[in-house]
Amino acid sequence: MFEKIETKGITTKKTNLGEWYSEVLTKSEFIDYSDVSGCYILRPAANFVWETIKEATDKEFKKLGIQDVYFPLFIPEKYLKKEEENFEHFKTEVAWVTHGGNSKLDERLAVRPTSETIMYVSYSKWIRSWRDLPLRYNQWNNVVRWEFKHPMPFIRGREFLWNEGHDAFATEEEASAERDNVLGIYQKILKDYLALPYIAGRKSEEEKFAGAVASYSLEMLMPDRFAIQGPAFHYDGTNFAKSFDIKFLDKDEQTKYVYQNTYAISTRVIGIMVANHSDEKGLVIPPKLALIQIVIVPIMGKDDEIVLKKAKELKEKLSNYYRVKLDDRKGYTPGYKFNEWELKGVPIRIEIGPKDIKNNSVVVVRRDNIKKYNIIIDNLSDTIKELINEIHDNLYKKAEQFLNEHITVVLNYDEFKKVLADKLGFIHAPWCGDAKCENSIKEETGAKITNIPFDQSKLNGKCIYCGKDAKYMANFAKSY
Amino acid sequence: MFEKIETKGITTKKTNLGEWYSEVLTKSEFIDYSDVSGCYILRPAANFVWETIKEATDKEFKKLGIQDVYFPLFIPEKYLKKEEENFEHFKTEVAWVTHGGNSKLDERLAVRPTSETIMYVSYSKWIRSWRDLPLRYNQWNNVVRWEFKHPMPFIRGREFLWNEGHDAFATEEEASAERDNVLGIYQKILKDYLALPYIAGRKSEEEKFAGAVASYSLEMLMPDRFAIQGPAFHYDGTNFAKSFDIKFLDKDEQTKYVYQNTYAISTRVIGIMVANHSDEKGLVIPPKLALIQIVIVPIMGKDDEIVLKKAKELKEKLSNYYRVKLDDRKGYTPGYKFNEWELKGVPIRIEIGPKDIKNNSVVVVRRDNIKKYNIIIDNLSDTIKELINEIHDNLYKKAEQFLNEHITVVLNYDEFKKVLADKLGFIHAPWCGDAKCENSIKEETGAKITNIPFDQSKLNGKCIYCGKDAKYMANFAKSY
Repeated sequence: MFEKIETKGITTKKTNLGEWYSEVLTKSEFIDYSDVSGCYILRPAANFVWETIKEATDKEFKKLGIQDVYFPLFIPEKYLKKEEENFEHFKTEVAWVTHGGNSKLDERLAVRPTSETIMYVSYSKWIRSWRDLPLRYNQWNNVVRWEFKHPMPFIRGREFLWNEGHDAFATEEEASAERDNVLGIYQKILKDYLALPYIAGRKSEEEKFAGAVASYSLEMLMPDRFAIQGPAFHYDGTNFAKSFDIKFLDKDEQTKYVYQNTYAISTRVIGIMVANHSDEKGLVIPPKLALIQIVIVPIMGKDDEIVLKKAKELKEKLSNYYRVKLDDRKGYTPGYKFNEWELKGVPIRIEIGPKDIKNNSVVVVRRDNIKKYNIIIDNLSDTIKELINEIHDNLYKKAEQFLNEHITVVLNYDEFKKVLADKLGFIHAPWCGDAKCENSIKEETGAKITNIPFDQSKLNGKCIYCGKDAKYMANFAKSY
Repeated sequence: MFEKIETKGITTKKTNLGEWYSEVLTKSEFIDYSDVSGCYILRPAANFVWETIKEATDKEFKKLGIQDVYFPLFIPEKYLKKEEENFEHFKTEVAWVTHGGNSKLDERLAVRPTSETIMYVSYSKWIRSWRDLPLRYNQWNNVVRWEFKHPMPFIRGREFLWNEGHDAFATEEEASAERDNVLGIYQKILKDYLALPYIAGRKSEEEKFAGAVASYSLEMLMPDRFAIQGPAFHYDGTNFAKSFDIKFLDKDEQTKYVYQNTYAISTRVIGIMVANHSDEKGLVIPPKLALIQIVIVPIMGKDDEIVLKKAKELKEKLSNYYRVKLDDRKGYTPGYKFNEWELKGVPIRIEIGPKDIKNNSVVVVRRDNIKKYNIIIDNLSDTIKELINEIHDNLYKKAEQFLNEHITVVLNYDEFKKVLADKLGFIHAPWCGDAKCENSIKEETGAKITNIPFDQSKLNGKCIYCGKDAKYMANFAKSY
């Protein structure tokens, strides 16, 4: 029996990130690969994570007054061409539909890489007066970007799921105010659901979204200490409004362009979550996002029936509050089951055997640190409640500690290069704000400015490249 | 002001179904057309209907133990070809992706018209033993069928949203038992949410799904008395299991093929709902599916402030239970607002003016039949609760009456043709069960067997075409 576990379990170390990550995702039956490179199958546990993130985020959006819509998957090529900068960026990674059945299409259609262009054609029709503003629409959908870089599930794929919010306001002030609202929601979701810490900031001019006036992002770390961009918010000013002719008659009888934002959280965050929290036993999922939160494993002995009966009672009771699975499969040892549910990342395991029943207790095991507790059954509900919170907090704290240990403040270029060679992670370094320095650093070291943190309290020193006065402490990193 | 309403309102009669339907959908801002024929934009009210149907259906699926997954949008052509009958059916209406960026793909990819083929390749990997069964997976996604028939929003489009359930069981009995479970859920959703009656039955051999052993459907009527197919359930036996090699080792150590079903409810039902309930004032939406359930229109007079204050109080109070909008726009007459919200199908309107406040009452108007009530404010919550139920029941009863009036039982072919010429609707007629008769009737009259009702209590007479003993009362109709 135990050989079977060995082959089922994770065979690589987390330091070998690519292989470990792939094993964790597939052996836990969280995802599977498909025959189309860069397209992945979300099995029930993974789909549940996304559904939960989606519901929690959408609930917050709705509180702000953002409404959900659905626009078509296919975008005529002529729409894409309307905003030049955006088109230049996306044209090399668009999947093109050229045929319907046996007929060649007159105009090829893009499978949406993002929906600005198709949505703004409609916005231009729908928005006439100040009364039509603000217009705050969002959609939850699939998008396709035909990337040729090495794909990695959730992190870099050709199809992914996301929200794309696209709003229009009468004034710059109102549009800008939306930034903190939306980034606030994303921050809450990352922290409270995914147990992930981040660095919030503004993108540099070089790194901002094609077509945006300013981009903002939440940047995180992968276990290999490379940075990865999470949810983002883009302030587009009147750029798209001018390309798509989105104008309104204001109260003062003047015709004006609208001010716009776009924002997104994608399934990528699931990959960041899995990579950060999981270990060499397999998947680790924060309790709020776990399809199964508690697994009960009855330890059978002579008194099978009594144990099973008690296990079922427990399951019934706990199911009022939690998502519970009773693993009453026969023909598998408890050890086999323990390994399997650890591999699958179930946050809490309850073991119950004849001895436990005599003592009116159970053994509770946490997935995050494999700590064991003997708990009197009467106290079980309370203990579970506490443990769920503790597990979440512990995962967050561990990830936060890892992040903090990998934020290095440097004041000169030699130190900068040394950290990149040894330690990696985020490097906060003084920067003059000039794209020339940014580009030279990127060329010479491979590190880019991931963002310019909102928190500039540690601004200090001279630009590490040119030696002029620093405008910002920029957040450099080698990144995905 | 009133000219403005006229041009905004519906200008066609419901008897002119195509034009009326299009006006109702677009003028109410429920949907909009896109530049890609057959692809439509779901604006917030329409998207809300679908989200609500989806949530309610999914909740029921989960109670049964069905789990949600997500499979890729793109299907390699070689997968599609694995089940011949299915491929023959779909190949003429597949949208093909041939290029990624500037590169031609080695193998063209189908934008999924349905996901049997891509899912079953995985099922074949995942299912090994009886322990892996039943496997009951579902996904909520977008699918594309490049139809060349005249498109009609929701009813016949090139992209639509749906659920596709695909399960696998160890035995035929278990697989068959799922039929009543799933059809039961769809029936509940149609009746309790969409307020739509239907005829439940089995498809004939000629009309069943390509690749299925037996298909089952809920058939409805459009206002033009043409039939339209709603949600469907297909029992596939071992057909796909054989094409995709989905086998398991059973308890008896024998290797066996799994038994499968597929089932779906799509955005098409929204179109059937709109067409059935709406009228010449615009959209009518059953209360559970209305994004705005109640609109409050303050009737301003000399005491603007008092009226507005009371209207806001009402809004706040009712918002605890309902989705409420306060229309406090200035510069529009109450009449203009009444027309606008009737056009948009808000189920209940509350009018409140200085006189009402003196009497501590409001005027409540139902959208479904435009009946007005004077209601004492203290009784408002109770009245609204009753009205919400009454409106739903009334919509259902009206649709049911329309359906029942258009089920004609005929016992001979002359009568059959007469009904088709005059009255249309469903025609229940005795049929021998032979495809030859079915096909001849279809060729000669344009009417097909929509389904064979489960309820065969009225089975009577001889086949209307060949005169042999009838096996079934079949449910004929001209259909969409």
